[in-house]
Amino acid sequence: MKTPVTVLGLGAMGTALAQAFLAAGHPTTVWNRTPGRSPELEGAIRATTAAEAVAASPLVVVCLLVDTTVRDTLDGIDLTGKVIANLTNSTPDQARALETTLTAQGATYVDGGIMAVPAMIGRPEAFILYSGDSAAFERHQADLAVLARPLFVGSDAGLAALHDIALLSAMYGMFGGAQHALALMHSAKVPTVEFTEQLLLPWLTAMLGMLPQIAAELEQPPVGQAAGSNLAMQAAAYHNLLDTAVGQGIDPMLLRPMGELLQKAVASGHGDEDMAAMIRLLG
Amino acid sequence: MKTPVTVLGLGAMGTALAQAFLAAGHPTTVWNRTPGRSPELEGAIRATTAAEAVAASPLVVVCLLVDTTVRDTLDGIDLTGKVIANLTNSTPDQARALETTLTAQGATYVDGGIMAVPAMIGRPEAFILYSGDSAAFERHQADLAVLARPLFVGSDAGLAALHDIALLSAMYGMFGGAQHALALMHSAKVPTVEFTEQLLLPWLTAMLGMLPQIAAELEQPPVGQAAGSNLAMQAAAYHNLLDTAVGQGIDPMLLRPMGELLQKAVASGHGDEDMAAMIRLLG
Ligand SMILES: NC(=O)c1ccc[n+]([C@@H]2O[C@H](COP(=O)([O-])OP(=O)(O)OC[C@H]3O[C@@H](n4cnc5c(N)ncnc54)[C@H](OP(=O)(O)O)[C@@H]3O)[C@@H](O)[C@H]2O)c1
Ligand SMILES: NC(=O)c1ccc[n+]([C@@H]2O[C@H](COP(=O)([O-])OP(=O)(O)OC[C@H]3O[C@@H](n4cnc5c(N)ncnc54)[C@H](OP(=O)(O)O)[C@@H]3O)[C@@H](O)[C@H]2O)c1
Repeated sequence: MKTPVTVLGLGAMGTALAQAFLAAGHPTTVWNRTPGRSPELEGAIRATTAAEAVAASPLVVVCLLVDTTVRDTLDGIDLTGKVIANLTNSTPDQARALETTLTAQGATYVDGGIMAVPAMIGRPEAFILYSGDSAAFERHQADLAVLARPLFVGSDAGLAALHDIALLSAMYGMFGGAQHALALMHSAKVPTVEFTEQLLLPWLTAMLGMLPQIAAELEQPPVGQAAGSNLAMQAAAYHNLLDTAVGQGIDPMLLRPMGELLQKAVASGHGDEDMAAMIRLLG
Repeated sequence: MKTPVTVLGLGAMGTALAQAFLAAGHPTTVWNRTPGRSPELEGAIRATTAAEAVAASPLVVVCLLVDTTVRDTLDGIDLTGKVIANLTNSTPDQARALETTLTAQGATYVDGGIMAVPAMIGRPEAFILYSGDSAAFERHQADLAVLARPLFVGSDAGLAALHDIALLSAMYGMFGGAQHALALMHSAKVPTVEFTEQLLLPWLTAMLGMLPQIAAELEQPPVGQAAGSNLAMQAAAYHNLLDTAVGQGIDPMLLRPMGELLQKAVASGHGDEDMAAMIRLLG
């Protein structure tokens, strides 16, 4: 028999996780604060309290809104012998503190960061970062693999959150840029789907190819001037991005800090260097 | 014989453009404010003034720092019968105004936006957006194709700049997110090249896949709630991005406006919608 599992939280993501466990044949107990959510989860065992749900399985996957939701939900519950895999978005500090709290309640703690949207769960590009108790992770690795490719990043419980938050930060930068670009195109009545498929995606995909070089220059600062796109030139062109937004009636709020960082880089003498110099100014 | 061409400006980009023309066998005249730049351009004819360079060829490609550089450089020069392809970064308004000025000097004007870094010139993923005089573009399309794939986006001279600026805005969002992520990883002594290749690139590539759906929802707002990642959940998690940055000693400047936009979206009643709702708030 497949490992019985419990899923706490039937929001968009918890529902996708429970669905993946059910599809893989795991006896799956679910609980959600508001009863009756996700009637599509056929075959799930519905617990009426979180304590009852926890009692049902050795592996408890938690996917609630925020850290305080998890704390409130698990408060006072006996977790003896349970592996808690908490996939709720957290900071590294929250993950470490929760490990301490839940370990004191008898649990073995694994923290996780889901690198997927619900529709991607179970698909090959989805992955989940884990950290914390490595023995517990290994014991349940095959169970967790039905959700998404599991990647263990270290026994410090905060490490999954650190990697998760870094990747989400990068994602929000990318989405912010794309949101601004789409707002601009929409304001000019350019069809946005065509723009996205024919120009935006090929362009961003090509530019992604520059990231390994930027990362390498962060580890090993290059000697001499920028090879291709010096920061002084970039700062000079950046005004055009802001002016164009304003000219089209688009709020340039998402663009402003990058302009400030470019100016700061030039003002502090890095005008003939490239992007890695900007990263050093953030840290 | 291949069309003789002139390149004004031997910065990093102008040099790459001249190199591509030379490699394709075009008689190539070059001019740069500071003489002696780019000695690697073997076979190029070096003009001592911009006027002399312009006189040498029917097609003049301009790649100088900013719009005012182009205006100052071409001021008072007879451009009768010349096609000016201005690849200097500009706003749509600057492109339209320059078309008026240079047309009065006798030129036929084509504006362009280079979607590549210098090292990409001549490679298949590089493209250049053009707008303005379509007959002049068509006459020189094959010549321009040696630089990068030419894409004509309309006879309004400002359209290449509009598309260019939108794509650059998206790029800077993506780079800003990546810069923040790399700063975070670097602060935690995680090797950044490995992080970039193994996690950041696959993750951003997967997330790019969501853009067509977001663009479609901008054109046709969906009925009902968000399918996967509602904005209230995103706003709740976003605090963790800021807190984690501060906890690691990283300036969260690049992340702040996205947090403000998420909060604004939730406060104005869009908490159960998804990203297209944020784009509408910018316009
Ligand atoms: N969706 C994504 O794209 C995605 C991706 C990666 C990670 N995540 C993370 O996954 C977690 C869940 O996200 P989601 O998309 O499923 O969010 P969601 O659809 O908004 O669902 C939120 C869940 O949290 C529960 N909840 C909220 N406040 C609660 C409280 N005070 N006590 C008990 N339960 C409470 C909700 O229960 P009710 O039904 O009773 O309101 C619901 O089950 C979040 O930490 C999110 O950051 C989401
Ligand atoms: N590099 C890229 O990745 C990239 C990508 C797409 C578009 N572009 C655009 O291409 C253009 C050139 O960029 P780049 O990378 O080649 O910049 P760059 O390496 O900094 O070169 C700047 C060029 O402008 C000239 N210049 C500056 N001020 C001048 C003035 N007052 N009068 C005459 N010439 C002047 C410089 O001449 P001196 O040698 O005399 O200083 C040099 O030829 C910019 O508009 C840029 O936005 C660049």
